[in-house]
Amino acid sequence: MEPYQLTATQVLSKFKDGSLTIEDYARSLLLRIEKRDAAVQAWAYLNPEYVIRQAKQLDAVPLEKRGPLHGVAVAVKDVIYTKDMPTQHNSSIYEGDEPKLDAAAIITLRHAGALLLGKTTTTEFASTTAGPKTRNPHDAGRTPGGSSSGSAAAVGDFQVPIGLGTQTGGSTIRPGSFNGVYSFKPTWNSISREGLKIYSLILDTIGFFARSVEDLQLLSDVFALEDDLSPKDDFSIKGARFALLKTVVWPQAGPGTAAALEAGAKLLRDQGAEVDEIELPPEFDNIPEWHRIVLHSDGRPTFLPEYRIAKEKLSPFLADHVENSCKIPRAAQLEAFDGIAALRPKIDEIACRYAAILTPSVVDEAPVGTESTGSPAFNSMWTALHTPVVNIPGFSGDNGLPIGLSLVAPRYHDRQLLVVSKAVGKAFEAGGGWKRQVYS
Amino acid sequence: MEPYQLTATQVLSKFKDGSLTIEDYARSLLLRIEKRDAAVQAWAYLNPEYVIRQAKQLDAVPLEKRGPLHGVAVAVKDVIYTKDMPTQHNSSIYEGDEPKLDAAAIITLRHAGALLLGKTTTTEFASTTAGPKTRNPHDAGRTPGGSSSGSAAAVGDFQVPIGLGTQTGGSTIRPGSFNGVYSFKPTWNSISREGLKIYSLILDTIGFFARSVEDLQLLSDVFALEDDLSPKDDFSIKGARFALLKTVVWPQAGPGTAAALEAGAKLLRDQGAEVDEIELPPEFDNIPEWHRIVLHSDGRPTFLPEYRIAKEKLSPFLADHVENSCKIPRAAQLEAFDGIAALRPKIDEIACRYAAILTPSVVDEAPVGTESTGSPAFNSMWTALHTPVVNIPGFSGDNGLPIGLSLVAPRYHDRQLLVVSKAVGKAFEAGGGWKRQVYS
Repeated sequence: MEPYQLTATQVLSKFKDGSLTIEDYARSLLLRIEKRDAAVQAWAYLNPEYVIRQAKQLDAVPLEKRGPLHGVAVAVKDVIYTKDMPTQHNSSIYEGDEPKLDAAAIITLRHAGALLLGKTTTTEFASTTAGPKTRNPHDAGRTPGGSSSGSAAAVGDFQVPIGLGTQTGGSTIRPGSFNGVYSFKPTWNSISREGLKIYSLILDTIGFFARSVEDLQLLSDVFALEDDLSPKDDFSIKGARFALLKTVVWPQAGPGTAAALEAGAKLLRDQGAEVDEIELPPEFDNIPEWHRIVLHSDGRPTFLPEYRIAKEKLSPFLADHVENSCKIPRAAQLEAFDGIAALRPKIDEIACRYAAILTPSVVDEAPVGTESTGSPAFNSMWTALHTPVVNIPGFSGDNGLPIGLSLVAPRYHDRQLLVVSKAVGKAFEAGGGWKRQVYS
Repeated sequence: MEPYQLTATQVLSKFKDGSLTIEDYARSLLLRIEKRDAAVQAWAYLNPEYVIRQAKQLDAVPLEKRGPLHGVAVAVKDVIYTKDMPTQHNSSIYEGDEPKLDAAAIITLRHAGALLLGKTTTTEFASTTAGPKTRNPHDAGRTPGGSSSGSAAAVGDFQVPIGLGTQTGGSTIRPGSFNGVYSFKPTWNSISREGLKIYSLILDTIGFFARSVEDLQLLSDVFALEDDLSPKDDFSIKGARFALLKTVVWPQAGPGTAAALEAGAKLLRDQGAEVDEIELPPEFDNIPEWHRIVLHSDGRPTFLPEYRIAKEKLSPFLADHVENSCKIPRAAQLEAFDGIAALRPKIDEIACRYAAILTPSVVDEAPVGTESTGSPAFNSMWTALHTPVVNIPGFSGDNGLPIGLSLVAPRYHDRQLLVVSKAVGKAFEAGGGWKRQVYS
């Protein structure tokens, strides 16, 4: 197996036993990118010299002084500030901008020894659904999803083991599904969002992409995610109880998602789990509309500076937020903000009865074209409710593209959710029918 | 009257009628600062050459191309990023740090033509109550309050007409009271907090200091603050109905605040207002403790990066947040977060029955010494509830130092609150007994 194919956990063990240098690893990734970049175009900024320089510095650090991610390559969504690479938000207003500031997450990753590979593409300010240049590695005629397009595609295409993303609607879970990787939106505000461009304070959440749950657990250690009760890493599907939830947006689900949800539930049942289909109380039906209202109203102050200095360079969708073109009254904004807030403890109470809630990640496989990054319909609710979510790959749609399913837990049960995700991921990857491939 | 004594509104009219250049104005302010800086020490960074350079550039802009704040000097709290001045957070970790990034508020202010005078002192990360070097301009032996110490003191001492601050507990309203100026904490998230160092996402709010309500209205225009109904600027105290609220922390009020609250209510009644003393439902009594829990738990992810890279340079209070030394369980954190959220619509419903709620700004006049910036006891509730608050000066304590009172309105009634504040400010400044002085 080539070094570029390794997960973070795997490559760390090779660094530790001395069978691979970080520089050789970095060169393997850079070669992989060189080979595949024309097809996938995941990168907004990548400087091979900077990567090799970091790798050499990391190689020079003695083993006993190394952090938990020492040498592991990480891709950074281009709405997260990095002091030695530009941060451009896919906005011509910020073309070439390099603010000399590391986001909180970047400080933590560097301290843990991560090798920052480059900046990955995003939709404009991670706030629109108009795709960047990036293609789905499984089918270049399709979107990789968004807004964390590049991080998801790069991880899916073995160009990097770990990708940083963000989610305000469905920007981490949806591209996770479209690219056939694990993606993880932790509990809101459990990781500092400092240095991440704002869309909506109450919604924006940092997210991660990886090709294994072990890698997500590694990141959770680095970011000090802690539940009240640390779960044992021996979860068994047998005897566990899952909720199956279609949600109010179920009519939007396509055949691929419908089949995946059925197959997922069957795989769990086959391994001895109880899977209860549940419905949420009717007040949860307001969430899609409330999410839309919060997004549009929060966009009003958020994009005021860009609107003032360069309205013509701002997408009309975002300029409309500033102008409040939808004429959302403050009263409606507050009703939505408070309405969602009141449902957070209620979903926790429901979710804590189960090992996890199993629910769709996407309406279907990645749509054709790169104009639109697809629908976040199945994700916005969990973003609004602040719950942790993991996309579990393993299924595929009518055209053979990957489809994942979401597992959801109560807030601050992130570690428990990852333990469950590991077992469920094994079951879905083994029995779901879709196999991860290394394209050449 | 010397130019440095002018409010923003006053100086703008002089720029417009050609009776004052921006450069002469800037030189007047710099002279004032030179004279008073040894006593007050409000500045974390001030470069006179940079100020004069800006002033000359601003003078060169023709009248018809000028923005609404053209030439008005603004002081910026040193937790807000400015790309041409260092941003150091009063932390040795960030000594000399100068990220090339303007906070959202700075972009908007520059676009409106503001002259950025310098960076003002703050407590460490605007997150502790240990005072910076700054002294109260009314008594050098006393604190100016915090955490927005420098901005409040500089405005109070006629070194600048407008100061930018922030509030997570009482960091804008309390120093407003201690320095005898108007201070304004708008509705949470009504102005973008992008580029402002995070303590708690759900609490941190940008705030302003000025010596007149007109200046706060000017800023509200610049930042596009809008209520559902734009209020007419002809509010009359006569016939209006105010609530007088002592809150659950009233036992902490000292004699100065007790007298000021009584005098304030009397002044309103004397002018023909109805002032009804109200009590909040008992669930509001939880807020002080809930605020503390949210602060400590939000500090956990917030200061993780600094803890990792330089724990020894972080105050023990903040290191304790990261270590969760108070052992706050996630369940308690969520109970506090959700509990406060549930009270927000309830306070709006109560507050909307009145022109404003009149309530203390501080426990008393500024305490002796600069070790502690004083207690935010009377402010934290409103920060947590997201309501707009204005500190109205006009009263004084046993030692002759200024004491203000807070006016509070429902969320997104900021413009209405400012209209009411203008009338109330006139009454309190005329009849409250404390007079603003220019110290030499």
